[in-house]
Amino acid sequence: MQFTAKEISLLLNGSLEGNPEVKVFQLAKIEEAQEGALSFLANPKYEPFIYTTNASVVIVNEDLVLDKPITATLIRVKNAYSSFSVLLEKYNSIKLYKSGIEQPSFIDPTAKIGKDVYIGAFAYIGVGASVGDNTKIYPHCYIGDDVKIGNNSSIQSGVKIYHDCIIGNNVNIHANTVIGSDGFGFAPQTDGSFSKVSQIGNVIVEDNVEIGANTCIDRATMGSTIIKKGVKLDNLIQIAHNAEIGENTVIASQTGISGSAKIGESCIVGGQVGIVGHITLAKGTQIQAKSGINKSIEQEGKKWGGAPATTFNNYMRSQVVIQRLPDMEKKIEELQKALEKLQSKSS
Amino acid sequence: MQFTAKEISLLLNGSLEGNPEVKVFQLAKIEEAQEGALSFLANPKYEPFIYTTNASVVIVNEDLVLDKPITATLIRVKNAYSSFSVLLEKYNSIKLYKSGIEQPSFIDPTAKIGKDVYIGAFAYIGVGASVGDNTKIYPHCYIGDDVKIGNNSSIQSGVKIYHDCIIGNNVNIHANTVIGSDGFGFAPQTDGSFSKVSQIGNVIVEDNVEIGANTCIDRATMGSTIIKKGVKLDNLIQIAHNAEIGENTVIASQTGISGSAKIGESCIVGGQVGIVGHITLAKGTQIQAKSGINKSIEQEGKKWGGAPATTFNNYMRSQVVIQRLPDMEKKIEELQKALEKLQSKSS
Amino acid sequence: MQFTAKEISLLLNGSLEGNPEVKVFQLAKIEEAQEGALSFLANPKYEPFIYTTNASVVIVNEDLVLDKPITATLIRVKNAYSSFSVLLEKYNSIKLYKSGIEQPSFIDPTAKIGKDVYIGAFAYIGVGASVGDNTKIYPHCYIGDDVKIGNNSSIQSGVKIYHDCIIGNNVNIHANTVIGSDGFGFAPQTDGSFSKVSQIGNVIVEDNVEIGANTCIDRATMGSTIIKKGVKLDNLIQIAHNAEIGENTVIASQTGISGSAKIGESCIVGGQVGIVGHITLAKGTQIQAKSGINKSIEQEGKKWGGAPATTFNNYMRSQVVIQRLPDMEKKIEELQKALEKLQSKSS
Repeated sequence: MQFTAKEISLLLNGSLEGNPEVKVFQLAKIEEAQEGALSFLANPKYEPFIYTTNASVVIVNEDLVLDKPITATLIRVKNAYSSFSVLLEKYNSIKLYKSGIEQPSFIDPTAKIGKDVYIGAFAYIGVGASVGDNTKIYPHCYIGDDVKIGNNSSIQSGVKIYHDCIIGNNVNIHANTVIGSDGFGFAPQTDGSFSKVSQIGNVIVEDNVEIGANTCIDRATMGSTIIKKGVKLDNLIQIAHNAEIGENTVIASQTGISGSAKIGESCIVGGQVGIVGHITLAKGTQIQAKSGINKSIEQEGKKWGGAPATTFNNYMRSQVVIQRLPDMEKKIEELQKALEKLQSKSS
Repeated sequence: MQFTAKEISLLLNGSLEGNPEVKVFQLAKIEEAQEGALSFLANPKYEPFIYTTNASVVIVNEDLVLDKPITATLIRVKNAYSSFSVLLEKYNSIKLYKSGIEQPSFIDPTAKIGKDVYIGAFAYIGVGASVGDNTKIYPHCYIGDDVKIGNNSSIQSGVKIYHDCIIGNNVNIHANTVIGSDGFGFAPQTDGSFSKVSQIGNVIVEDNVEIGANTCIDRATMGSTIIKKGVKLDNLIQIAHNAEIGENTVIASQTGISGSAKIGESCIVGGQVGIVGHITLAKGTQIQAKSGINKSIEQEGKKWGGAPATTFNNYMRSQVVIQRLPDMEKKIEELQKALEKLQSKSS
Repeated sequence: MQFTAKEISLLLNGSLEGNPEVKVFQLAKIEEAQEGALSFLANPKYEPFIYTTNASVVIVNEDLVLDKPITATLIRVKNAYSSFSVLLEKYNSIKLYKSGIEQPSFIDPTAKIGKDVYIGAFAYIGVGASVGDNTKIYPHCYIGDDVKIGNNSSIQSGVKIYHDCIIGNNVNIHANTVIGSDGFGFAPQTDGSFSKVSQIGNVIVEDNVEIGANTCIDRATMGSTIIKKGVKLDNLIQIAHNAEIGENTVIASQTGISGSAKIGESCIVGGQVGIVGHITLAKGTQIQAKSGINKSIEQEGKKWGGAPATTFNNYMRSQVVIQRLPDMEKKIEELQKALEKLQSKSS
């Protein structure tokens, strides 16, 4: 892809300074950009690079004042960062555009396929499944029987979605993630073995959700495991059966949510956190990375840390003291000796 | 699928009260059930719902006493919960029944395929591999050269089993799990680089094992990594080379077992636990979620927690005190001052 | 495969004692070996097994002195362990040799495919991608558009490599690992939702890297996430966008490296470690398993532990004291009482 400075300026409704015909064919950071690159300058810290960059075109804030001559063509806009973000998105939507049905793929004759879809080679679409308009199913995806996927969603290579699960609109699921595997439910038997409890529920992923790579969301034993609107899940996360993740909650990598836990809306959960089953986290709860949450949190909007977790402030104070523990222990011994000396003196 | 109350009652050997001809076509919790649903009531806590449920048929314990009229047809059985479990299992075994060999799939001419198997599209079965009777290999599975899989097993979509591994009967492996990848073994070289130690062993998964999604079990350097009869592994677990998991042991999600560790039989290991290499856990050991086990546990049937772990009681007591640490530190300072005052007085 | 003792002895440049014509067809540990097995004895601890082993051929150090008759044929070499390693490698390179292009596979006509490659059935090679000489792409791999893979690399079944990523020579990536999925970047909006920040960078994996199974390496927002020469990554690891892992660094299973973190060369990071974003770890840093690193480490070659981490010695001392905390608390109370008693006496 190749654009002139003028084309970009028109797209961003910016004002152009320099050569309008100069062409760019890649995006780069201002400090690393080469000739032919489009870059941006938003953070004043990076201003010196405007004089040394090899970028051919740089998007800048409209009020930028230059005190030396520069070689790049400038496009002045209200907000350079958000204009650049718009360009990135446009760039990716053109670059990653795919459509059509590659062969060989396996589409059961009973499946319903929307308009303008992409279905990659070796994708599998089961009995009664449906795929909405403008949705992309990349190679090696498994869309089980009766799965429903909405419009404008993107299911990356190797994602496996078990039967009966429901995926909304504008959902993006990254490679090799598994949706709808059996919940981990077993009934102990008298001989020490365990018998499987059949898992007949499903997973519902609502609109505008993003799910990272190699993440697992188990189906409910009965009913649904639910990922609500706008949730963002990172890579390698475990969501157990019957859990519910509230609207616009963000969860970082390698965190595990146990069975039937209910995470409120607009929570922020760090990486490698563990949350036990059957508890509830209030709206706006924030959890420090690596914490273990073993009871419900009822007050909204608070920050927690530690394993088991306490309020963040308490956690931070305890952590600091822990590192002084050996000294504390020594001091106690000294106190004891001093006291004994005093005692023997006074008796 | 659709059944009459009478058919279900006969199947469960129950006694029927109400309309024997009413039809059900789905399973639901009593509090959520709609018309056409079959539900159950086992826990007395849920008894009020029997009067308000929209379920068409409810399975109840034979001794349930009603004090108001109800609309649902009842099926009275000895144990409503276990009868319902039986139905769930039957339901799933009908619903998930698959057989035949879908095309395109890749089956090496030297592979041995049993009777009544299902082999999904895009499944790959290597040189000399064998698949037992009634076993299901879902789409996108990779069954490496000389792998042996027993009867009545179910290998979900995207599972990768490397060459020479052995999978027993009635084994269920969930999507995108990897069995038999190389153990993590490297020999340090004088120039600071590492040279790979070839991993020529395999993985043996015995009968009645269930393995979750996106879990990894590495092959042994030499010999075998062994998952014994009846073991249940959750999602995203790491089992390193030459480890051994004892019969009927249950391990929760995101736990890691290091190389050559031997976990005894009937152990219960929580989520996000780490177990170092070359140690042994006695039969019946229970490990609290998020713990780190860095030495062998020799006494059977004990509960441990913490990182590094201590006995569970000790761990719980320490955790409670940790949260009082800042207060403790303050108290020590006060003691010191008081003592100094006394000392100056007495001198 | 079957070899005579003589063939092996010639290969290792060893000296043979016993029957040169005895045949071996498998490799085994000396204590478990059966007839037809080749084994080795390097560790003096295992010397008694030389008299009882059923191995047909045993490789031993040249200076081994026997004090009883044995049945196995011996091959004496300078270093039995490294000679055996050489054999293992040779064994695996013969055993795992694959070449040719299996059908059906999907290779875009614009892709460049080197000499003597293996491309498994159901592999997908996108527009403009290239695969170097002697490289193996196993079944179900997804090689996205414009991906470049070097020579002598091995991409195991189900690996997904997104567009534009670059993989070097002699790289080994295990099954179902994902390279180049989107970094986890979202901009908060005023209505509480998050808008995706397009991720247009890539991942660069340099030469001689090994990556385990089900690991995730996210692409950079802009620029590259970089895995340098000789790095060894275990299974289920998370490497976030724009991170950089230094030459010859080794990272164990289930560890997470957050965005823009820079890990120095020759570091050793244990399992289940978490490293926060935008920090730097000095060359040769060693991190204890399960630690949490929340600030940069500037001194080279030091060992750290804990969450948050301190120097390893400090961490170990604190851990020991933590287990004595309940006793410490009791002692403080006793001191307080004794002091009060003294105070009342002295007043």
